[in-house]
Amino acid sequence: MGQQWGGEKAAEAIRPVFGRFPAEVLRGVAQVDFMPSAVCGLFFTAALFAAGPQYGLYGLLGSAVATTAAYGLGLDRTAVGAGLHGYNGCLVALACAVFLGAGHPATLAVAVLGAAVAVVLTAGLAALLAKAALPVLTAPFCLVATALTAAAPGFRQLWHGAPAPAALPAPATGTTAPGWGDLWHGFFANIGQVFFLPQWYAGLLFLAGLFAAGRLAGLAACAGSATALLTAWASGAPGDQVGQGLLGYSGVLTALALHGVFLAPGGWSLGYALAGAATATLLTPALGAVTAPFGGHALTWPFVLTTLLFLAAAPAVPRLHRR
Amino acid sequence: MGQQWGGEKAAEAIRPVFGRFPAEVLRGVAQVDFMPSAVCGLFFTAALFAAGPQYGLYGLLGSAVATTAAYGLGLDRTAVGAGLHGYNGCLVALACAVFLGAGHPATLAVAVLGAAVAVVLTAGLAALLAKAALPVLTAPFCLVATALTAAAPGFRQLWHGAPAPAALPAPATGTTAPGWGDLWHGFFANIGQVFFLPQWYAGLLFLAGLFAAGRLAGLAACAGSATALLTAWASGAPGDQVGQGLLGYSGVLTALALHGVFLAPGGWSLGYALAGAATATLLTPALGAVTAPFGGHALTWPFVLTTLLFLAAAPAVPRLHRR
Amino acid sequence: MGQQWGGEKAAEAIRPVFGRFPAEVLRGVAQVDFMPSAVCGLFFTAALFAAGPQYGLYGLLGSAVATTAAYGLGLDRTAVGAGLHGYNGCLVALACAVFLGAGHPATLAVAVLGAAVAVVLTAGLAALLAKAALPVLTAPFCLVATALTAAAPGFRQLWHGAPAPAALPAPATGTTAPGWGDLWHGFFANIGQVFFLPQWYAGLLFLAGLFAAGRLAGLAACAGSATALLTAWASGAPGDQVGQGLLGYSGVLTALALHGVFLAPGGWSLGYALAGAATATLLTPALGAVTAPFGGHALTWPFVLTTLLFLAAAPAVPRLHRR
Repeated sequence: MGQQWGGEKAAEAIRPVFGRFPAEVLRGVAQVDFMPSAVCGLFFTAALFAAGPQYGLYGLLGSAVATTAAYGLGLDRTAVGAGLHGYNGCLVALACAVFLGAGHPATLAVAVLGAAVAVVLTAGLAALLAKAALPVLTAPFCLVATALTAAAPGFRQLWHGAPAPAALPAPATGTTAPGWGDLWHGFFANIGQVFFLPQWYAGLLFLAGLFAAGRLAGLAACAGSATALLTAWASGAPGDQVGQGLLGYSGVLTALALHGVFLAPGGWSLGYALAGAATATLLTPALGAVTAPFGGHALTWPFVLTTLLFLAAAPAVPRLHRR
Repeated sequence: MGQQWGGEKAAEAIRPVFGRFPAEVLRGVAQVDFMPSAVCGLFFTAALFAAGPQYGLYGLLGSAVATTAAYGLGLDRTAVGAGLHGYNGCLVALACAVFLGAGHPATLAVAVLGAAVAVVLTAGLAALLAKAALPVLTAPFCLVATALTAAAPGFRQLWHGAPAPAALPAPATGTTAPGWGDLWHGFFANIGQVFFLPQWYAGLLFLAGLFAAGRLAGLAACAGSATALLTAWASGAPGDQVGQGLLGYSGVLTALALHGVFLAPGGWSLGYALAGAATATLLTPALGAVTAPFGGHALTWPFVLTTLLFLAAAPAVPRLHRR
Repeated sequence: MGQQWGGEKAAEAIRPVFGRFPAEVLRGVAQVDFMPSAVCGLFFTAALFAAGPQYGLYGLLGSAVATTAAYGLGLDRTAVGAGLHGYNGCLVALACAVFLGAGHPATLAVAVLGAAVAVVLTAGLAALLAKAALPVLTAPFCLVATALTAAAPGFRQLWHGAPAPAALPAPATGTTAPGWGDLWHGFFANIGQVFFLPQWYAGLLFLAGLFAAGRLAGLAACAGSATALLTAWASGAPGDQVGQGLLGYSGVLTALALHGVFLAPGGWSLGYALAGAATATLLTPALGAVTAPFGGHALTWPFVLTTLLFLAAAPAVPRLHRR
């Protein structure tokens, strides 16, 4: 997202375009968690396939379509090569598979179209946010996926007889005391839900990919996930939601973004990042409620909104330093 | 909107203010479709009167009130003379007639007030968007009309016993195979629905006005309408909505804006414009769903959002050129 | 908000930090109405305690927490000293007391956390809006309080068995002819509802504080409240809502902001400010409808949106001058 690729750059520069393409698609998958590393992307792809082959295929397809579209539009090659156009396409395609059903041919067509539109939105939002020195994060994905989930029931080729997803939000019910099973499962699910996956072993593979890309990233993800668990438990979130990672994925991304990716790591930025992770966790049911009446989902909006405002505030805080 | 008035300018400059005013009001009507041409405005006004005298009167009133308010506030005279303050007022007044009932005196008062407020919003948004070199498009109209439709049921002088407009969005029902009648009707209705009018002959008159202003504009509108029809049909939108032009009007405006008005015409910008038209078409039921729970409407939000982001992205695409 | 502290500055500068702190907290309370005056803050605090001790305590707590957090983050000391970080914290804490119940320990914890987050949002939004020379107004409070009211039902520690607040908006019912009692009560309640208080005597104390800070501010608040009453009555708002000040508080703030605080006072800015107050009044049921389906409230969003756009337009109007 904001990170450029360092170590892999020299080796890549001498290969022809077609030889570089697979690594760039993998880097697009890895950039969902800000990592400009094809090795990390391999771990992430393995996690997607572990949860189900359809997720692996849609994720790779989305990153590949978006990267191709970015080349076709003639966008800045360094950014495309670092995977900075692939990650929103990857997430858009995954959202299509999850919300519209991976097996329908129309879902495949929408995933391709949506991933291409995400490239235009990425370029447009990047131009607007660059004036404030802010990154686009996953805002293009959130915009496309919110529009798709709201629009889909209105199109009979995209919506296949399921009941209307729109509903007024209701207060939480059920037990709020997460058991030990909820807690350790939620710790990994928080990391996997960034890619819509609730399986603990998928989360573990994502975490392994983060550690492969760098120890700092792995530790920041662990700290973000633990902070999100603690915040959700203390606030009385339903235990089963905590266990599925439905409250913590924005906290994981926020901790990664604010500690190491966009702000230089250190004690102050760690505190700032964990405060951001807690804020994003509390914001997740808020976005769920705001989007429920039109059939939308929280997606990573809590991460996007929290991180953009915390990053915009950072220059006013003398102890924080942009990276 | 973004276009300045070329040919008509020299002739106008020597007339006194009162002599210029009628042409400026007509230009305000024409600027709804970006045309800075009083002749085009005459065609558009004829289309409004053909659909019903109340629409003609409200449309002219809105443009006249907004133009007068812009002069009264002392805004830039060149922009006011080109009709760049009239078009949002024209649309606000039409929205009042359509959603609140043209026959009530309170509707008339709200139309006048709303058109004047739209002038302030136009100046405010123009100042904000100018930093990114973006036009305001119909955003002032969308803001005022969304606020009015959401607020009206709360005021007994503005809401006359109709049931609450707020409802959760429901999945599409009915046939999705538009017949030949739906298709040719929808082709013209897409153009007329920019002004809230579903009549095919009104759409034909609008199209005539566009061709009168310039062949390129007329062809872009046709291409946008056809793209919107194709997208809606392929996605399985209900056939009767397609026939009434309820999915295609934002596509028409997006095609006009991105091919010829704000981007220089050419093969690449045509492809970009038609991709934008397809995106705006898919976005229309999304905005309908988002606004339904509070009693709002999609209006031209899909056009505004799509065009702003596609225009913001344009400088990053080497093959596209701003006009 | 935008005003700096003039007269009190010299006397303050020579006191140590701990001696200055109480005056800065009071100034934070006063800045809700843009007044950088500790004396005014004393009146406002008295009004809060008059309505109920819990409101006085939460208001002071919010301002104190936010001021402390701003010092802790190392934000610009002049702004902190003028109360420019306290007022959003004050409002966030009051919103917690009103919407979540003042007596629950969890409400207190959320108020502290929310006030601290409001400081980060203030710094972030200020950096973004400074590029357009616009103030943040109460946007940080509106964002935090909207998120809190939407999220709270999802957390069992924050929501204590009350029914779901989310509902589709319904058309206005009941009498729309406000009696004399509604009118004079509403005149003061409009001023008190800025702090969520419907009591006329609380409004009277707020008004006394405004006059203590300056005659111009007191008169602008009166003119804003009267304009809001007139607009609500003419539009047919329910009489009991008018009497409780539920339609007029944004009008009061808008009149203050546009006549004297951010625009130089004068005949033209008075007309502009009262047009803004009428717009904000009509916008209040609109924001109520937009936020109802997810359990939110209009808060001071109508004031924030109206004032930001009217201020953004001001440089284009030759007769208006920024202060």
